[in-house]
Amino acid sequence: MSDSLTVTEQTRLRRAHERGHFDRETIYAILDAMPLCHVGCVMNDKPVVIPTIQWREGNHIYWHGSSASRSLRASENTNVCLTVSILDGFVLARSGFHHSVNYRSVMVFGQPTQIDDPDEKTAKLGNLIDSLYPGRNAGLRAMSAQDAKATALLSLPIEEASAKMRDGGVKDEEEDYGLPIWAGVVPVRQTLGEPIPDPRNLPDVEMPEHVHKISIG
Amino acid sequence: MSDSLTVTEQTRLRRAHERGHFDRETIYAILDAMPLCHVGCVMNDKPVVIPTIQWREGNHIYWHGSSASRSLRASENTNVCLTVSILDGFVLARSGFHHSVNYRSVMVFGQPTQIDDPDEKTAKLGNLIDSLYPGRNAGLRAMSAQDAKATALLSLPIEEASAKMRDGGVKDEEEDYGLPIWAGVVPVRQTLGEPIPDPRNLPDVEMPEHVHKISIG
Repeated sequence: MSDSLTVTEQTRLRRAHERGHFDRETIYAILDAMPLCHVGCVMNDKPVVIPTIQWREGNHIYWHGSSASRSLRASENTNVCLTVSILDGFVLARSGFHHSVNYRSVMVFGQPTQIDDPDEKTAKLGNLIDSLYPGRNAGLRAMSAQDAKATALLSLPIEEASAKMRDGGVKDEEEDYGLPIWAGVVPVRQTLGEPIPDPRNLPDVEMPEHVHKISIG
Repeated sequence: MSDSLTVTEQTRLRRAHERGHFDRETIYAILDAMPLCHVGCVMNDKPVVIPTIQWREGNHIYWHGSSASRSLRASENTNVCLTVSILDGFVLARSGFHHSVNYRSVMVFGQPTQIDDPDEKTAKLGNLIDSLYPGRNAGLRAMSAQDAKATALLSLPIEEASAKMRDGGVKDEEEDYGLPIWAGVVPVRQTLGEPIPDPRNLPDVEMPEHVHKISIG
């Protein structure tokens, strides 16, 4: 497998002054840092953008939803764009024009397929749990046939994809640096709050280690 | 103007067990809480989902980009879906099936128009700055004709829109509450880091109040 991804639309989608990145390492790192994604599909000739949770296994990206979901069915075997974005900071410049944000984002294009096999579906959905909470799945009530039937699972190979990002400081016009205007960067982070145990937890059940292993951003 | 929004696609897009909200107050609050949005458009018959910054003025939503941006031009006077999503927490249940996330999201559908008038464009882009950093725009180097020319600005009335959200605790199958499995919610928040002043700030320039007034999430 090649280290670089095929590039078609993406090169033309680049904004001025932004660099596209097409190496797998960069793309994988961004996908792995943020489970929230936005999947764009076309329904009735109109674009629809649905927020959902994605996870990656090797060179495939997965997402799931209700079997009754029209948007999931509208995404199967047709073109989608799955985008993951992380806001890293606000960039305050000396002109409005050079204000910006620091961010990391990935767009993955392709035609997802549905995973119908119940055993494969069960295994993959267990991997979703473990991708968020390492080791949690083995201790859960096992997936029932009804659970599997109610869940639709889509898979997309990461073949046509690109990452875009901005980091670092302010970039102003050279003549603007002499102005008495405060410029700088305000970082943004996703942070986890203190876990809130379900009031119906059994009295002897302790909070497992994986609750503190959630990694986001 | 009616208090409720027209509803077409959205009712059918609802996932099982999720409630759609169509009151303006709910929709406005989510849009105002998160400048990062994802705009879906169709380019060459394929969906494309672009992360960008949105802001709201009254019943219109705005976003901007480079005048050279193909995706902005592909969004003008044609159908788009603009989605704003905020991840509020991870919900850990006793079965994989009932794991979930807490979130707030809004989808706005419609056909954006471009604002070409330079004065209107300048005013609106100043409002973008002030929406993020209250009062900042008046102190900046004024927008040049070149800045305005390089920037494309889109406007979309919030007429066809819906909010979806999940909050609260774990919802398990009744028979699963007896299992010795830890369940609970791990909150997620967007937090601001300590501002990093540009090393080229003039020595007598102090950090303005609005740097601490950024509100996100």
